[in-house]
Amino acid sequence: MTRLLTAVLTCSTALIGLAPAVLADDLRETAEALFKPLPSTIPAVKDNPITEEKIELGKALFFDPRLSASGVFSCNSCHNLATGGDDNLETSIGHGWQKGPRNSPTVLNAVLNEAQFWDGRADDLKAQAKGPIQAGVEMANTPDNVVATLTSMPQYVAWFEAAFPDEADPVTFDNMAKAIEAYEATLITPAPFDAYLNGNDDALDADAKAGLALFVDKGCAACHSGVNVGGHGYYPFGLIEKPGAEVLPEGDKGRFAVTETVDDEYVFRASPLRNVSVTAPYFHSGKVWDLKVAVQIMAESQLGEELSDEEADQLVAFLHSLTGEMPEVVYPVLPPETATTPRPTDEIMPAN
Amino acid sequence: MTRLLTAVLTCSTALIGLAPAVLADDLRETAEALFKPLPSTIPAVKDNPITEEKIELGKALFFDPRLSASGVFSCNSCHNLATGGDDNLETSIGHGWQKGPRNSPTVLNAVLNEAQFWDGRADDLKAQAKGPIQAGVEMANTPDNVVATLTSMPQYVAWFEAAFPDEADPVTFDNMAKAIEAYEATLITPAPFDAYLNGNDDALDADAKAGLALFVDKGCAACHSGVNVGGHGYYPFGLIEKPGAEVLPEGDKGRFAVTETVDDEYVFRASPLRNVSVTAPYFHSGKVWDLKVAVQIMAESQLGEELSDEEADQLVAFLHSLTGEMPEVVYPVLPPETATTPRPTDEIMPAN
Repeated sequence: MTRLLTAVLTCSTALIGLAPAVLADDLRETAEALFKPLPSTIPAVKDNPITEEKIELGKALFFDPRLSASGVFSCNSCHNLATGGDDNLETSIGHGWQKGPRNSPTVLNAVLNEAQFWDGRADDLKAQAKGPIQAGVEMANTPDNVVATLTSMPQYVAWFEAAFPDEADPVTFDNMAKAIEAYEATLITPAPFDAYLNGNDDALDADAKAGLALFVDKGCAACHSGVNVGGHGYYPFGLIEKPGAEVLPEGDKGRFAVTETVDDEYVFRASPLRNVSVTAPYFHSGKVWDLKVAVQIMAESQLGEELSDEEADQLVAFLHSLTGEMPEVVYPVLPPETATTPRPTDEIMPAN
Repeated sequence: MTRLLTAVLTCSTALIGLAPAVLADDLRETAEALFKPLPSTIPAVKDNPITEEKIELGKALFFDPRLSASGVFSCNSCHNLATGGDDNLETSIGHGWQKGPRNSPTVLNAVLNEAQFWDGRADDLKAQAKGPIQAGVEMANTPDNVVATLTSMPQYVAWFEAAFPDEADPVTFDNMAKAIEAYEATLITPAPFDAYLNGNDDALDADAKAGLALFVDKGCAACHSGVNVGGHGYYPFGLIEKPGAEVLPEGDKGRFAVTETVDDEYVFRASPLRNVSVTAPYFHSGKVWDLKVAVQIMAESQLGEELSDEEADQLVAFLHSLTGEMPEVVYPVLPPETATTPRPTDEIMPAN
C-alpha cells in the first residue's frame, strides 16, 4: 500500500496544472502504473489446473439448486450471472427466509481478488464456495449430504470422473469446490476501461477520463487499484470519518471476526469495483442504492473529501467504464434425481 | 374423450393375440392415431403473434427475479430450465418461505396444453404467467409494481417497444405476460417418442415399445393422449379407487374451485407426460418421488389395474422415451436497476 500511496501522490502532483494534451498522456501512464487490464485468457488458480471438463462440471454445480438443503438456492441465486453476478438485494435471502449478514459480492472477475468475502476470510474461490453451501442462513447443507446428492446421479459421477481423471474417488466436497472455482475463473468481463488500458484512447469519454483523473488524484486508487480496481488489501471503513450506523452497523466488526485484532475492527477488504454500476446496493451493509451517493460517502469517510456535484458525476462516469461484457453462458441441463437422491428439506435446523 | 376411449378399446382388442411383426405395425398405427409428434416450428398462440423481439424480451422476463416483490424468485425459480422445467420440490417455496398448494408443473411444451395449471383455470400461458407473479405465496407482486419496475429500466422500455412496435404505451402487465408466453412457446423438447412417431422404428427399444403397447392397452392413453401425452381433459383423481390422503389431500378439491360443480370435486387436468422422468416428484401433491410408484398408483386409482412388476417397468421405459432435448438457452443479461426502480421487500403482506 505504501508504494501505491506514493504512486498516487506522485501522480496527483503530476496532474496539477498540466495542459490537457500532456494530461492525457500522463493519465494513461498513471493508469497503467496503478491498474491492469483483464487477461485475455482464463487465469490460472492455485492447486487446481483448469480443464474444459472441470469448467463444464463447475457450471452445472454453480447453477444446481440441489446443492442447498431446500433445493431452492444455487450459487447463481445470490451471484446471478443475469444481474452482474450478484442478487441486487441489501443482504441475500437464504434458507428459511433468513437474511445473510452482508451484501452478496459479485462473482464476476472474483478469481482475480486477493482473497474472498468482505473480510477476506477465504483465500480463494474454492475455499469460498464451501462457505455459503454450509451456512445455516444461506444454503444450509452439509458436505456429506452434498456428496450423497451428487453421487446419487450417475451423470454427475461421470462428470466428476472426467474432471478429476486421476482420482479413485472423485466425487468429494473439495472437488466440487474446485470445479466451481474453475467455472468462476471463466467469468471475466472486459470493459471499456480495459480497452483504454490496452491503448485505445477513445474507449473512455471525457467525463470518464476526468473521473479517472479524480479517482487517482483524490486518493481512491490508494485502495482500489490493480486488475480488479480493488479486491486486495484491508482498510477500516471510516478511515477519516465513520459513516452512520445505517451504513456501518455497529454489530458487524468486519475483519476483526477473522483476526481478533483490535486494529481490524470495522476493517474490510477494499471492494473490487469492476461492474460496480450494475451491482447495487452498495457496501457490506447493502444500504446505499445510488452509486453517486456511495461515491460521496466513500470520499467523506475514507478521504475526508467533500466532492462537488460535478466531481461525483465524473467519478461515476469512470466507474461506469468498468462495466464489462459478460461471457456467453449457455444454461446447463442438469442430471435428474434418482431414487437415492436425498430429498430437499425446507426445515430450519437448530444451530449447533 | 368418448371418441378416444373408443379408439383405445378398439386398439386394445386389436393388440391381443397378434404376432409381434403385426403388432409392431399395429402399434405404430395406434400410436399415430392417439398421439402427435411435436411440431418442428414454434407453435402459434392465440392473440399473440410471436416475433424474435418478443421471444427475447420474454426470455429476459422469464429469468428476472425482479418480477417478484422480494427480488428472489423468477419464473425460472419454479420452472427451472436446468431441471426439466420444474423445481423438483413437492410444492414450490415462495415469498416468505411459504409453500405453494400444488406441485409446480413443467413449463416445457406447456404451450401445447389445452389449458394451464392443475385445474386448468388459465386458458393459456399468457393468462397463466400473471398468476404466480401476483400470488401471495409465490412472487407476491402487483401489476402496478411490476410495470413500475420495468418502466424504470430504459433497456426494458426499449425491448418492449421493439416487441410491441404498434403500441403507444407498450410496457404493460398484459404485454409482459404475452412476451413470457412467446418465450415459453419456444421451449419444445423433441424426444425419442417423436422420432418414433415420425417413422423411426429404432427410436424406441423393445421395453419402451412394450410399455407403449401397455399404455394403450391398459387405458392410460384414454386420458394421456395427444401431442403432450396429456394436458387436455379433466378427470377425477381416483376414478376407480381414491388414493390415500397422503397422495390426494382432502383439502384440495381440484377443479371444483374453478367450476364449483360437485362433479368436479378432486378433478384435475390429465397431466402432460412429456419429460415426466425428469420432473419428480409426482401428482398435484408432489408426494410421490418414484415414477414406477406413480405409474402403479395411477393404474390402481384410475383403471383398477394391478400391474405386474414387468408391466410397470415397461410403462416406465415408455415414459422415459418422452424425455426430450432442451433447446439451447443462452442465459440473458438483464438491464440494471436505476434510481427509480422499486426496491425489493421481503416482508409478508397480510392477505386482502
